[in-house]
Amino acid sequence: MLKKKDSYVVAVIGATGVVGHEMVEILQERKFPVKELRLFASERTAGETMNFQDGSLTVRLLNKDAFNGVEIALFSAGEEVSREFAPVAVAAGAVVIDNSAEWRMKPDVPLVVPEVNPDAANKHRGIIANPNCSTIQMVVALKPLHDAARIKRIVVSSYQSVSGTGKEAMDELMDQTKALLSFQDVVSHVYPFQIAFNLLPQIGSFDEQGYSSEEMKLVNETRKILEDDRIQISATTVRVPVFRAHSESVNIETERKLSANEARALLATAPGVLLYDDPQRKVYPTPLDVAGTDEVYVGRIREDLSVESGLTLWIVADNLRKGAALNAIQIAEKLIQAAS
Amino acid sequence: MLKKKDSYVVAVIGATGVVGHEMVEILQERKFPVKELRLFASERTAGETMNFQDGSLTVRLLNKDAFNGVEIALFSAGEEVSREFAPVAVAAGAVVIDNSAEWRMKPDVPLVVPEVNPDAANKHRGIIANPNCSTIQMVVALKPLHDAARIKRIVVSSYQSVSGTGKEAMDELMDQTKALLSFQDVVSHVYPFQIAFNLLPQIGSFDEQGYSSEEMKLVNETRKILEDDRIQISATTVRVPVFRAHSESVNIETERKLSANEARALLATAPGVLLYDDPQRKVYPTPLDVAGTDEVYVGRIREDLSVESGLTLWIVADNLRKGAALNAIQIAEKLIQAAS
Repeated sequence: MLKKKDSYVVAVIGATGVVGHEMVEILQERKFPVKELRLFASERTAGETMNFQDGSLTVRLLNKDAFNGVEIALFSAGEEVSREFAPVAVAAGAVVIDNSAEWRMKPDVPLVVPEVNPDAANKHRGIIANPNCSTIQMVVALKPLHDAARIKRIVVSSYQSVSGTGKEAMDELMDQTKALLSFQDVVSHVYPFQIAFNLLPQIGSFDEQGYSSEEMKLVNETRKILEDDRIQISATTVRVPVFRAHSESVNIETERKLSANEARALLATAPGVLLYDDPQRKVYPTPLDVAGTDEVYVGRIREDLSVESGLTLWIVADNLRKGAALNAIQIAEKLIQAAS
Repeated sequence: MLKKKDSYVVAVIGATGVVGHEMVEILQERKFPVKELRLFASERTAGETMNFQDGSLTVRLLNKDAFNGVEIALFSAGEEVSREFAPVAVAAGAVVIDNSAEWRMKPDVPLVVPEVNPDAANKHRGIIANPNCSTIQMVVALKPLHDAARIKRIVVSSYQSVSGTGKEAMDELMDQTKALLSFQDVVSHVYPFQIAFNLLPQIGSFDEQGYSSEEMKLVNETRKILEDDRIQISATTVRVPVFRAHSESVNIETERKLSANEARALLATAPGVLLYDDPQRKVYPTPLDVAGTDEVYVGRIREDLSVESGLTLWIVADNLRKGAALNAIQIAEKLIQAAS
């Protein structure tokens, strides 16, 4: 458990990735009580410098001794790094907030979205998992509706930006677009097929039933965070040629009927949600508007014409911020609030 | 009714638009029995020339006398032109196949997809309506499943390319992309917001319940074509920065349970469908692959984990070909087959 202090020694593992960058920026933006910030990365980028507050920090190579004295360790370096180093950090006395999928579904690891299940954070045994980007934004928007009317079933189709894959994918979209505009050959390194001006209905790998790992994250993580295994979920996840912010077309069936206006009233005051819903006046969220912001934007709220008690929503959030770095730091803030 | 002949006088109204262009090309490709082809457009483009077979044709200005001697009139010039000129064409003795929304939901106008409800075409009173692009591809894929297991409910989210809006929209996506890559200001004329590297959850105008006209077309046209008003449909339609081919994430609930393998077997032999479904080997349709082809591609077929009897599918087709021009010409081919 974190001790009450004025400031903390914080480590960011995977600091040079897109989410790591965002973590460093958000720590500064939110005036997180940082006593000392240590940045770690793999051999590929260790040695780079990054700005923080008024100075610049050198990114160090991650190793087993990295965590001596670290109190809060923010991991965003992939599953393998988390598997190997999160236990090392915990043994050194740090609380780990891990952005990989490695620990999320372990029964004794809390999976936390502060607006949804803040209390779970305090039940950690050293590691707290940060959910997947596409899950976070969906549960932030659905939690108030679930509380009010119990969601029985969710059908979600996603429109996910390339930054969810990382910096190389953002470069690939840019490079492919440039190549196409200058009539040159398109090369795909990161994705199996061209992403520029195209869509890829594959995020992650496929299981035997044909579901992608990203789709099953939406199913399993949503149930764990909402603490309700009865919720039935069907997901289709698709990569789109957008740089930043994920969008989701979400259809829910509820036990009690919710009117669109009731849903709007609930979402208007829900934590972390920005209701952005007046389509007649062209008010609906687009990823371009939402990129760089902290809220989960909800628009296009409609009563579902096809069932007795259903709603359809369009949910957009910045996958690097609320979908990753911001949520991790909000978890750390909850821990600090609860520290004694 | 069309008389049996070796060849016909065909008119294309809206010949210089993206669908009109495609119509002219497909008439030639499919060796449609054209005795004479007349091309019409508005003042803006009348006078242009277009290639057909070994010659070139001058596009004429559409007027009331245009249809003298015309036997088959293919309209793709918007609702207003269809409203005004389709009855003129019928009065002049032509059969009209109309690609606009103007006549689709009129009870005495057949709405036809040749693979789905070919017989409806023969019940026309002069005008046959061509369905909306997003509807056509969905019903081609769903018809064999509906016949086998009765579809009770459809939840569909679309990913629609800019060519559905027309040539100006394709230019807008290209121009905005170029502007962004050269750090210039982005201008939006056709769409309300930037479409390059963005998504717009608006296609058409919104009704009071918050549904867009495109979404309600999917609801109403699907019921009419499948001749089953009991099918419940919930649709969300989204414009994506893709030039050509529409994609749809479609979730169905059926009366009888269909396994994914049963669905694959049905779709493997269904007319107009190309089963493209082996995700483990990266076989799934993307709009880039499908653009320029005639079939409705279906992949990502999964049994829905969230209901007893449900399936989830990813359906992609070229919106200018099967979604518009090709379907219209296939209707004309049906009429010729039935002519006596």
